[in-house]
Amino acid sequence: MNIDGKAWRTIWLEQGGRSVGVIDQTLLPHRFETRSLATTEQVAEAIRTMVVRGAPLIGVAGAYGLMLALQQDPSDGALAAAFEQLNATRPTAVNLHWALERVRDRVASLPEDERAEAAQAEAGAIAEEDVAMCEAIGNHGLRLFQELAAARPAQRQNRPLNVLTHCNAGWLATVDWGTALAPIYKAHRSGMAIHVWVDETRPRNQGASLTAFELGREGVPHTVIVDNAGGHLMQHGEVDAVIVGTDRTTRSGDVCNKIGTYLKALAAHDNDVPFYVALPSSTIDWNLEDGVAEIPIEARSAREVTHIQGRRDGDANDPPGGHLASVQLSPDGSAGFNPAFDVTPARLVTALITERGASAASEAGLKGLFGGLRRADH
Amino acid sequence: MNIDGKAWRTIWLEQGGRSVGVIDQTLLPHRFETRSLATTEQVAEAIRTMVVRGAPLIGVAGAYGLMLALQQDPSDGALAAAFEQLNATRPTAVNLHWALERVRDRVASLPEDERAEAAQAEAGAIAEEDVAMCEAIGNHGLRLFQELAAARPAQRQNRPLNVLTHCNAGWLATVDWGTALAPIYKAHRSGMAIHVWVDETRPRNQGASLTAFELGREGVPHTVIVDNAGGHLMQHGEVDAVIVGTDRTTRSGDVCNKIGTYLKALAAHDNDVPFYVALPSSTIDWNLEDGVAEIPIEARSAREVTHIQGRRDGDANDPPGGHLASVQLSPDGSAGFNPAFDVTPARLVTALITERGASAASEAGLKGLFGGLRRADH
Repeated sequence: MNIDGKAWRTIWLEQGGRSVGVIDQTLLPHRFETRSLATTEQVAEAIRTMVVRGAPLIGVAGAYGLMLALQQDPSDGALAAAFEQLNATRPTAVNLHWALERVRDRVASLPEDERAEAAQAEAGAIAEEDVAMCEAIGNHGLRLFQELAAARPAQRQNRPLNVLTHCNAGWLATVDWGTALAPIYKAHRSGMAIHVWVDETRPRNQGASLTAFELGREGVPHTVIVDNAGGHLMQHGEVDAVIVGTDRTTRSGDVCNKIGTYLKALAAHDNDVPFYVALPSSTIDWNLEDGVAEIPIEARSAREVTHIQGRRDGDANDPPGGHLASVQLSPDGSAGFNPAFDVTPARLVTALITERGASAASEAGLKGLFGGLRRADH
Repeated sequence: MNIDGKAWRTIWLEQGGRSVGVIDQTLLPHRFETRSLATTEQVAEAIRTMVVRGAPLIGVAGAYGLMLALQQDPSDGALAAAFEQLNATRPTAVNLHWALERVRDRVASLPEDERAEAAQAEAGAIAEEDVAMCEAIGNHGLRLFQELAAARPAQRQNRPLNVLTHCNAGWLATVDWGTALAPIYKAHRSGMAIHVWVDETRPRNQGASLTAFELGREGVPHTVIVDNAGGHLMQHGEVDAVIVGTDRTTRSGDVCNKIGTYLKALAAHDNDVPFYVALPSSTIDWNLEDGVAEIPIEARSAREVTHIQGRRDGDANDPPGGHLASVQLSPDGSAGFNPAFDVTPARLVTALITERGASAASEAGLKGLFGGLRRADH
């Protein structure tokens, strides 16, 4: 996507593949800086410290991390060590594990002098497939938006289509396009008048920081709101659709996504607002039926609740973008609890938008698109 | 209520009524400081800058502001000028206007040399009535909590009653006890095991700052959560009841309260969790029927969305409680929108808890308690 008119991806090769370039997402939205990662350890550190984040992007970064390792030492031992080092950075990230395995399996049977090049090709293929999958989601979602816009009452036809999103399922979480934001970018580029309500998405504020940054740089009209505001906006007809991403979707269509998604789905249902979930099929967990009962929800550090990071008001001597600072919100001695995700039951989901098209949030709907494919099948 | 074992109210007389003491709520929860307000202008300034906030407390502060004016100059002209000065501080605060009128009407027909003393007595009466009303709400709510605790399945009887609250409807918003928090304080003091989930309540974070402060100083077990988390907790049986305050309630039982209340009511309804609203009857607007359609919702400054205040990490040279600082959360150029309240339809409200007891959230329920009383009647 564009940053002020220039096309970017979240990850790229530099120096003919001797290093990997990424955007330092910990400094967004206040400072835009890139990093060059020249060693496996630098890639691992970038994943650990969330310089790169978002399941698809982490997978591609890990794949390139193996490539860098094999450039230094293409032996079986070095391959195994780099695999372990990278895999340990985010133990619950399914995409990372999958991408590392894919590169390892591709190169393991090759002569040592062909491995680095093969790893580069395989990592590149993973990246390109991710871009293609996100773009396909964008095109399928665009059609839904077009139908929705056309179906509005006459007195609303001259307003932008108002879409609410939660968290960041944009290009910064993938290689390009994003998942939930891909249809929004497609709509905007197609000339459709679209405006996005951006949930700030406490505690980590990926909406206020990353989604707002993405949309702003691409030139998509948007407004940041607190997570509390969406229900009120829906009651007053200010939201035509909600679209979010997902970390894991059960075969019955229950959607595990960033904490707070469920509340927006309830409000959408209560106000007859379509609630869409955009997902690459790799996030469907065919082994799970009941998301609320079966998906374990990770609790993250309470400090994310009791503190928040932002840009301090500064003066002329500050670096560009200012100083980032953390402030404490709650009193000393008050505990915090920080569940990171929640589960939206399929009954609240209007449609799942995948790379193969949209379907009902149900086993029948998903099987209609994927024929009961298991993750291991593709 | 108690602050570390010592009983406090939010407002008190000093020097035999020559000044008014208040807690500076802009510094909470990080610094606890009191202010002495010796002139009408100081009272007006304290209301304007939210040193004192909460409808009932503002009303009492305004009443004492008239008293201070009359001590300096008991003439009709001075009374009228002070009335206007105080009334202009928060033009939409119904309680403030009502309290100012009540003091003015009480003293206007008196000889000038009796006015200051009469104003002091009337302001004191308003304060005592507020305390009594809040305490009555507390007692009625306590009975509901006791019934709820007893009705739980056997395997939950040994757990604390888990109550979720949004925003701050505690003693800091009133003179003492609070509205939504009054039943919680009553329960805790009665020896009931109770634990409170505190919504941080973006954008102004009255939950994370004021409610957490109140509960902590009184010794009530509590945990701060982001506003996104409540639905997930309810899905997993971690919330036995929700209780909130209200700024305005229609005669049909629709509840206007801090933005985000509606989302919690939807989640409570979806998970069969009782949703209670605590209110003094003075907040019932008998002229309104449909809250969503008829109550205008104030939009506050977008800066409350794009920025947040907290305590900066400090060093040994900092003042006690540290430095308060504001940080920017969203990118330059991203707009924010900040509706301050939303309306929860009566169908989502389990019961209204008033100073006269609990009722269904309906015109029949409210008339059963109040017999169709209008505000002007009491």
